[in-house]
Amino acid sequence: MTAIGIYGSNGRMGRAIATIVGDEGGRIAGGVDAGGDPVPLAQAADVLVDFSTPAALQPHLAAAVAAGTPIVIGTTGLSSAHHALIDEAAQRIAVLQTGNTSLGVTLLGILVREAAARLGRDWDIEIVEMHHRHKVDAPSGTAILLGEAAAQARGTTLSEVRVDGRAGLVGARTEETIGFSSLRGGSVVGDHHVIFAGEGERIELGHRGEDRTIFARGAVKAALWLAGRTPGRYQMAEVLGL
Amino acid sequence: MTAIGIYGSNGRMGRAIATIVGDEGGRIAGGVDAGGDPVPLAQAADVLVDFSTPAALQPHLAAAVAAGTPIVIGTTGLSSAHHALIDEAAQRIAVLQTGNTSLGVTLLGILVREAAARLGRDWDIEIVEMHHRHKVDAPSGTAILLGEAAAQARGTTLSEVRVDGRAGLVGARTEETIGFSSLRGGSVVGDHHVIFAGEGERIELGHRGEDRTIFARGAVKAALWLAGRTPGRYQMAEVLGL
Amino acid sequence: MTAIGIYGSNGRMGRAIATIVGDEGGRIAGGVDAGGDPVPLAQAADVLVDFSTPAALQPHLAAAVAAGTPIVIGTTGLSSAHHALIDEAAQRIAVLQTGNTSLGVTLLGILVREAAARLGRDWDIEIVEMHHRHKVDAPSGTAILLGEAAAQARGTTLSEVRVDGRAGLVGARTEETIGFSSLRGGSVVGDHHVIFAGEGERIELGHRGEDRTIFARGAVKAALWLAGRTPGRYQMAEVLGL
Amino acid sequence: MTAIGIYGSNGRMGRAIATIVGDEGGRIAGGVDAGGDPVPLAQAADVLVDFSTPAALQPHLAAAVAAGTPIVIGTTGLSSAHHALIDEAAQRIAVLQTGNTSLGVTLLGILVREAAARLGRDWDIEIVEMHHRHKVDAPSGTAILLGEAAAQARGTTLSEVRVDGRAGLVGARTEETIGFSSLRGGSVVGDHHVIFAGEGERIELGHRGEDRTIFARGAVKAALWLAGRTPGRYQMAEVLGL
Repeated sequence: MTAIGIYGSNGRMGRAIATIVGDEGGRIAGGVDAGGDPVPLAQAADVLVDFSTPAALQPHLAAAVAAGTPIVIGTTGLSSAHHALIDEAAQRIAVLQTGNTSLGVTLLGILVREAAARLGRDWDIEIVEMHHRHKVDAPSGTAILLGEAAAQARGTTLSEVRVDGRAGLVGARTEETIGFSSLRGGSVVGDHHVIFAGEGERIELGHRGEDRTIFARGAVKAALWLAGRTPGRYQMAEVLGL
Repeated sequence: MTAIGIYGSNGRMGRAIATIVGDEGGRIAGGVDAGGDPVPLAQAADVLVDFSTPAALQPHLAAAVAAGTPIVIGTTGLSSAHHALIDEAAQRIAVLQTGNTSLGVTLLGILVREAAARLGRDWDIEIVEMHHRHKVDAPSGTAILLGEAAAQARGTTLSEVRVDGRAGLVGARTEETIGFSSLRGGSVVGDHHVIFAGEGERIELGHRGEDRTIFARGAVKAALWLAGRTPGRYQMAEVLGL
Repeated sequence: MTAIGIYGSNGRMGRAIATIVGDEGGRIAGGVDAGGDPVPLAQAADVLVDFSTPAALQPHLAAAVAAGTPIVIGTTGLSSAHHALIDEAAQRIAVLQTGNTSLGVTLLGILVREAAARLGRDWDIEIVEMHHRHKVDAPSGTAILLGEAAAQARGTTLSEVRVDGRAGLVGARTEETIGFSSLRGGSVVGDHHVIFAGEGERIELGHRGEDRTIFARGAVKAALWLAGRTPGRYQMAEVLGL
Repeated sequence: MTAIGIYGSNGRMGRAIATIVGDEGGRIAGGVDAGGDPVPLAQAADVLVDFSTPAALQPHLAAAVAAGTPIVIGTTGLSSAHHALIDEAAQRIAVLQTGNTSLGVTLLGILVREAAARLGRDWDIEIVEMHHRHKVDAPSGTAILLGEAAAQARGTTLSEVRVDGRAGLVGARTEETIGFSSLRGGSVVGDHHVIFAGEGERIELGHRGEDRTIFARGAVKAALWLAGRTPGRYQMAEVLGL
């Protein structure tokens, strides 16, 4: 039975994974949190799952590479420097980094890509998300993932077209930009909507997470799928056969 | 310049088409309404557009076939007997029947088909639409079009899985059914949402029509595209190059 | 500590109540399900909570009246005959019947009442709800509760203006009717939206239940509040001090 | 017949007002735009309506005060300095300033006030709005109006609790703040939703403007009501008898 090591095991996701790992046919190799040593866990586990903090990514990747253990990265708030570290690690071990591990969001990303590719540039794209009051970063990793899907489908990169937190005298909207809005409150698990606004009509493509279990199940599915893979950077859509 | 004849020229859609036909590069050949003779218009026009009533479909198709004139049919509330008449006419003239002529809804139909094909049978499908208080039939032609896209993607037909107007002690939901809900009120141009509800998460794919002009523009685009085509039954997606 | 007896203790709500009753400062006196004898529990409990089936309401009320024990009724799908039984029981014991025990829905009912009273009759009212695939009745008890609030605010009764499950050639909307639409699918806890649709604008008042615990907490709060009250029929808004 | 003078007569709202003023029982006294002299119009009109720019507010108010003519101000993007000018003018003439002139939004403001007053501080408040791609300021005047209603109901002022354009590592949400999100795209007339997010449940109170005419009608209604009033600062709710 595949042994999964959890970085960030006392966080919301870490605990949810521990609860359902057995249902999905895996087992827990152990957990490490802030202050702990990531190396022994990387050696003991068949595959690692990281839902900790951006600051901890570097030592976690180093431990995984040293032990030759594949790793699923679900930590959000990553910078381009973090992505460079991930690309480097992916030359030595199997890595799957994703802003969202649910089946529904993975499919939504595919639909957003398709809509963005088929609609003309005169359809403006806006992404709005809502999460619980404890979330510390904005926009969510999932919102960014959806924005990247749209930007790539239009032949550009998100960093060139991204507009965060519109406020003040911002002027008229610029064509080709993608706007992000982040709502926070209550206990919302995670809602995301991508709006394509044309002249006289709108298309709305959305996802509502009702239960954090969907992310934990997807993360465990990804870990079981990733264990034993050759080095490289993998996608959630591959795990789900989409 | 292509001359378009309108059946139902005094209705909402007929008037909207007359207003914008010039912008799209066509011209009006004339109009006929309830009680009028459809034959002379079919002879005078290069292509016909029908936004009248189901009861008038048979004489309109007969006039079009007799004159050899292509016809776009946007009338809603059609039965399977009406579709048989359309299939028969399509052996003699070019026919394009659609529940919705807007670009946004046409794309939405494609996305719904894809989502239905990729998600497992344990994702329940519900379709909800809202229209203005004057609409006489339910569900809307567009809702049915979206339901057909979903049913076909799952290898079945809408008539086998369709559930309308759930009310009373209906029992638990049956897998594979597609439920329809129709709201009516105010001056709503037309909103449609298709919901895929899985365990712990939901995907929502929707369209909001803000301005009736989008349908008129699409209908004129379809008519200009259909004029001069060989006999057969065509799709809105072909008109828009989707 | 107030002892709460549960009719329908093995159902979703019954189990949720048992889980949280301690947090709210009560305790469980026992539970009865289909086939069990309701009389001993009515005698042992300080207050009863009924989340069972309409068919079981009569024996449950009889047991409560015989024992002089107050009862909270959350069972949905009640007919006017059931309400007559409740009114009769309320002459002998304290009874609180509600379609929804959450704080949010209780407040929503107050806002709907206010909007319906202040907006003219030319604002059409529609109520749409979505619940999980296992729910057997439609519309939900909560939707009916909201419809009653709107109807009363307009000086009529829901039975006179209610339109369920619009389907087919229904004709144009009639002023003053209230339409109900019921969606079913997945694991949705319970979403309700009341739409007031006027000429050129819409007001939408909604509630989303994310977690079944909100209903259990409200039911326990209602039970603790009802224990020891004099006979009469009470409202959820009184419990919450709204 | 009351003669209405329009500041900003060539803007969207100015033109919409000119189109419908006759239906509401008024007439146009004339219009002034950027670069024009506001004084003669203030003398010729019975009442003024200003839908121009914040920079033009001061000369418009001066002209109105000098002529003793009441003024309705619908310009958005006003600062506290502008509000001080309005308060000063209101000592000499009748002034009605509002972020939104529609009946629906005016009622929504009342419902938001009520919900904010009745729900505990542990229900987080978020306001999200969407407007067409040409709008230059964010958040909309209407969103601010709704935020002020909520803040006042909780015994504070909006400036103390307002959070605009959340983006980056913002940390967990602070209790009592009110978050604003502004989406821009396509031809959206104006959608606003106020979300109250509690533990396990959400209340959503929203308005969708379908047609710019609703604002023009409300502005003309406000102007006709304001003409001839004694000096003071009036509210839209008074105009509509709410």
